[in-house]
Amino acid sequence: MSAKIIDGKLLSQKLNSHLKISIAQNKGVRAPKLTILQIGNNPASNKYIKNKLNSCKSVGIDAEVLKFDNNIKVNELEKTILSLNKDKNVDGILVQLPLPSHIDEKFINNLIDVTKDADGFNPQTLGNVLLDNTQIYPATPNGIVKLLESENINLVGSNVTIVGRSNIVGKPLATMLINREATVTICNKKTKNLAKVCKRADILISAAGSSKLITRKFVHKNMTVIDVGANFVNGIYCGDVDFEKVSKIVKYITPVPGGVGPMTIACLIENVYKLYKNYYHKNNSK
Amino acid sequence: MSAKIIDGKLLSQKLNSHLKISIAQNKGVRAPKLTILQIGNNPASNKYIKNKLNSCKSVGIDAEVLKFDNNIKVNELEKTILSLNKDKNVDGILVQLPLPSHIDEKFINNLIDVTKDADGFNPQTLGNVLLDNTQIYPATPNGIVKLLESENINLVGSNVTIVGRSNIVGKPLATMLINREATVTICNKKTKNLAKVCKRADILISAAGSSKLITRKFVHKNMTVIDVGANFVNGIYCGDVDFEKVSKIVKYITPVPGGVGPMTIACLIENVYKLYKNYYHKNNSK
Repeated sequence: MSAKIIDGKLLSQKLNSHLKISIAQNKGVRAPKLTILQIGNNPASNKYIKNKLNSCKSVGIDAEVLKFDNNIKVNELEKTILSLNKDKNVDGILVQLPLPSHIDEKFINNLIDVTKDADGFNPQTLGNVLLDNTQIYPATPNGIVKLLESENINLVGSNVTIVGRSNIVGKPLATMLINREATVTICNKKTKNLAKVCKRADILISAAGSSKLITRKFVHKNMTVIDVGANFVNGIYCGDVDFEKVSKIVKYITPVPGGVGPMTIACLIENVYKLYKNYYHKNNSK
Repeated sequence: MSAKIIDGKLLSQKLNSHLKISIAQNKGVRAPKLTILQIGNNPASNKYIKNKLNSCKSVGIDAEVLKFDNNIKVNELEKTILSLNKDKNVDGILVQLPLPSHIDEKFINNLIDVTKDADGFNPQTLGNVLLDNTQIYPATPNGIVKLLESENINLVGSNVTIVGRSNIVGKPLATMLINREATVTICNKKTKNLAKVCKRADILISAAGSSKLITRKFVHKNMTVIDVGANFVNGIYCGDVDFEKVSKIVKYITPVPGGVGPMTIACLIENVYKLYKNYYHKNNSK
């Protein structure tokens, strides 16, 4: 038996098509706009930004990249963000990660106004995610939830194990699944008997950033496996899961590439459109 | 064998003594001040508020209660909170729960300025708790962490099971323990085989609000049991744990009353002092 592949590329294309129609139908005097801040010239960042720009273009979102030298002073970056917060022609702001070591990620994410928080990394956004009181979610967790929903995979009362406790995937995803009445276990590097803890799950989500971490010992035949890993091994892009072997055992699985990755971008640009709509709504109701 | 009782009353008294000294030593032109808003006349709320006022008084925090009729309009309450947000003589604001049904709790908690958020229920505070980037925590989860720390109970790599997924206990507590590298499982009413899931834990925390939910079947001899329940059964105040039987089996246990309850108030008034200190720090550095 082989697992059913949950095709994130296909689902993201469907979402983008819907988004394109919504944007065309609800366009005001200008298109939605995303501003991406890039510090330095990280090759992986270049690639991710290119993908974001292409996706924006394909659905009718204006996007621009402001590039800064790797040595930019924090207060210069701060000034730029505060000015973008006030710019009525910008709906979403995103600072491409990773940042150079002299710039504190939390400080930067806190500067971005919550009404322009495209990535969903602002503390207020994350608090509202925990409270289940928002339309804006960090893109990767939101993409994962949409992948599960696309196959009608039950969450209520299900056992979900998440490997990885990052601020942008593990923790917000945990709160989103808790809000959907799943029984959620969050593992980290110190977890004892990781394989055993994982094997208990109905849904296993690995966001550890460690290739071939999830082997046959971690899974069973009724399991759904979501692979959030984005690793490069000998120049080859792969996830956390030993796909070849695990996909022969489990019920559902996402591939890398073509699983969570494209969903992350689809959810990011959906955030930009939601921020745009909120902006227009607010300005029309005043 | 009988469990060691973790005495929340004693620990809260110690914390209050330290706080009293800190306040006396760091007092500016005025004492720290907490304003409590009470809507209606709920008898349990009256009791909780009285305890909060007494604790404030004992450590040198000024506290006042603003009482409102049960039928108060939301915009009146809003006006009061916005005015308190600007009041330079108020450091902490707290709206006593529960609220009458016509008032949305999330809306109200969102109104309280994050710099005056005594309860730690504001979304920005909760997001910062998730990000491990704050000094202010919701009082009950913070009290639980302090109870565990007081007995040097290991969290790193430990299996913690939390029963209950509320916005004020379960979810923020989960993020705090995840940040301490525990492997955390959050259960809810839909969890399958609850007893079995609980029995796997090194530390079991019940915040379900259901008396005698946690029985002998849920525990083992090396377990620490933290009882967050605050239930009234036939007029008797009790927790979620069948204390008589469970305390004969496990290693550590908190009683009700005298466990988490007094720690919650101690952590609340500590928040007020921290908000006061931040306020003074800000105003001296400007």
